[in-house]
Amino acid sequence: MTIEQQISGMALQARRASREIATVSTDVKNRLLLAMADDLLKRADFIKGENLRDLEAGRAKNLSAAMLDRLELSDKVIDSMVTGLREVAALPDPVGEVTEMIKRPSGIRVGRMRIPLGVVGIIYESRPNVTVDAAALCIKAGNGVFLRGGSEAIHSNLALAKVLQEAIAAENIDPAVIQVVPITDREAIDAMLTMDKYIDLIIPRGGEGLIRFVSENSRIPVLKHYKGVCHLFVDASADPRMAVDLVINGKTQRPGVCNALETMLVHRDIADTFLPLAAGALAEAGVEIRGCEATCRILPGAKPAREEDWGMEFLDLILAVRVVDDLDGAMDHIVKHGSQHTEVIATESYGNSQRFLREVDASAVMINASSRFNDGGQFGLGAEIGISTTKLHAYGPMGLKELTALKYIVYGDGQVRG
Amino acid sequence: MTIEQQISGMALQARRASREIATVSTDVKNRLLLAMADDLLKRADFIKGENLRDLEAGRAKNLSAAMLDRLELSDKVIDSMVTGLREVAALPDPVGEVTEMIKRPSGIRVGRMRIPLGVVGIIYESRPNVTVDAAALCIKAGNGVFLRGGSEAIHSNLALAKVLQEAIAAENIDPAVIQVVPITDREAIDAMLTMDKYIDLIIPRGGEGLIRFVSENSRIPVLKHYKGVCHLFVDASADPRMAVDLVINGKTQRPGVCNALETMLVHRDIADTFLPLAAGALAEAGVEIRGCEATCRILPGAKPAREEDWGMEFLDLILAVRVVDDLDGAMDHIVKHGSQHTEVIATESYGNSQRFLREVDASAVMINASSRFNDGGQFGLGAEIGISTTKLHAYGPMGLKELTALKYIVYGDGQVRG
Repeated sequence: MTIEQQISGMALQARRASREIATVSTDVKNRLLLAMADDLLKRADFIKGENLRDLEAGRAKNLSAAMLDRLELSDKVIDSMVTGLREVAALPDPVGEVTEMIKRPSGIRVGRMRIPLGVVGIIYESRPNVTVDAAALCIKAGNGVFLRGGSEAIHSNLALAKVLQEAIAAENIDPAVIQVVPITDREAIDAMLTMDKYIDLIIPRGGEGLIRFVSENSRIPVLKHYKGVCHLFVDASADPRMAVDLVINGKTQRPGVCNALETMLVHRDIADTFLPLAAGALAEAGVEIRGCEATCRILPGAKPAREEDWGMEFLDLILAVRVVDDLDGAMDHIVKHGSQHTEVIATESYGNSQRFLREVDASAVMINASSRFNDGGQFGLGAEIGISTTKLHAYGPMGLKELTALKYIVYGDGQVRG
Repeated sequence: MTIEQQISGMALQARRASREIATVSTDVKNRLLLAMADDLLKRADFIKGENLRDLEAGRAKNLSAAMLDRLELSDKVIDSMVTGLREVAALPDPVGEVTEMIKRPSGIRVGRMRIPLGVVGIIYESRPNVTVDAAALCIKAGNGVFLRGGSEAIHSNLALAKVLQEAIAAENIDPAVIQVVPITDREAIDAMLTMDKYIDLIIPRGGEGLIRFVSENSRIPVLKHYKGVCHLFVDASADPRMAVDLVINGKTQRPGVCNALETMLVHRDIADTFLPLAAGALAEAGVEIRGCEATCRILPGAKPAREEDWGMEFLDLILAVRVVDDLDGAMDHIVKHGSQHTEVIATESYGNSQRFLREVDASAVMINASSRFNDGGQFGLGAEIGISTTKLHAYGPMGLKELTALKYIVYGDGQVRG
């Protein structure tokens, strides 16, 4: 059997199982999720044993400490997967919700019903907890899930899949609703991306290279984000102390994530007073400033920015700082260097706040709030499967609703078209 | 300059112009649309002259009468484009609408704002009126539009674009917001489909071959439907006269369109009485029946269906008819042969109506109403740019809202994450 035949067979099974999960009751789905949680705990030793095989292979391959850390299924990581499953069980079921029901002049009543997408494909790298977190959200939204993790986590992913599938089978539901691809060749991804008959959506999670490869080669719609280059624009009218709080929180609360700030843009009229204030707080927090010429004139200690620092995702305690002429200068910079992820203005001007809100194109645009709030939990989605910077279907954090679609429903009494 | 460079240059211009149209007021957009309408009328002679060149070339190439008919820009077609532009001007502007504003425990207020998509690419075949109809909807939704029509309509499309662009330039808006590709080589499509930096969405309109080519080769998200194979299931409890009305309207009111019925499924318990009744009405309307074995036993005059008639898009006065055991049999047939376009049940059973509504996966699922209602106008969208059978982003008729996206907006008072 070729890799393509194997992938195709698994995807067909997932498609079939997805029809069952699409129509079972909320109670059944919640029971599955709780059983999956219980079994992960009960079989933690088996899971950790298989995980050890990946860790040993990783050490032999000299993976970095950070990579090994992401790979490890410690008791703490297992607990957090268990908590995640229970939290998803407690979320409201989006499937079946009917909205926008209207009566048309013809007499028909037309509305929209929320339905599962079908089968969701996830292509991810080293973190094996994605296997569980993604499966939980997909199942709650009534979807099958087709998972392809990285080769370095293959034993962990297959062990997790085995435990989850057995929990599902014990509830008399087709366990093929969760599929983990056992093949680590790149060919398995190639094959998966052509299965538009069986897979409805691909969500790649990992480095920019993986995501570009997936979106350039997929016949299936892809929801993705490449990177988060988030800006804070400090307007002339900004409350300086609030702006300092926003830059410190955005840059330092968790520098390694996509909604951390990477660049601060400062209005020329406030630069002389604001920059020294901000620089003091940033220095105290250990942040390196890479400034434009005007910034370096005001802050003689600052390192000059190189051209490539604009639009750079540092994911570190480094902040690019540029002085701009006005709101339009800030928005031009964001168009050129932003990544459509999160953009923030600090301002007390009503007019500028509203122009920024309307005109800036990003998955989240904020007035006087930390970029770190662009997150499914903070926005009230309950849990998220990633953040999309693709405008189609979902723009921003993707929760349960983003794993569903809306179909039209029509109630008639025999109406025909004249 | 290579074709790729030419396409890339045009797409970049469209992207730039799309930023302007995204932020102009509703009044300005409406003024543009009305000016475009006026100028089409004023310059009808120029348009018809250029159209004549396409018609003459088409005749020389022995295009069918139907093809030539679709190609012709008669006064009637021009009038209908003008009416379309004026109707779109009268529709409410979706851009800027804010929904779902909630206050979160952190104190931030989070909502969603409707925004334009950016640049919409349309790849279409012979009808030059698509140039105008698509441009109208895209501009009203604040988007640039990048049009690539068929070679047989190239002079017509370029003439229409010239008139529309001049109307736009006269209003001091960048005319690059409408781009018509002057290159008829297939290479122009290839190049267009790689421009994911400048084009946000592709809508192909045409035959199944074109649509498959586009969706297999595009790096840009594609909204499409391949075909409409719509079923009517006549349940045992159906009102027979209502069911006859539904099949006659669905099959004969306009047989050549995607929401026409192609197959009727009849519950075994009602077949003996219902089929002769329906057959009488269908015969009167000139419809040929291709029946399963059970159908042919009840209707000895009926032509036996071949296997390929199930799932066939006849687009003609031909109807496949199959007797099924029950609701599950009907739904199994629809899973196997449907095209996720429009599916109808005729029933007086509450339970069956609700199961069909919930479980059938199609862009529109209807109880006791004609499949012909699956249409943007009938559903209240105002105007449509096609019907999507892709579940992502839009499922069903695509109107102005489907040419927009939602971004998150956040109002804060200095909140930071703890």
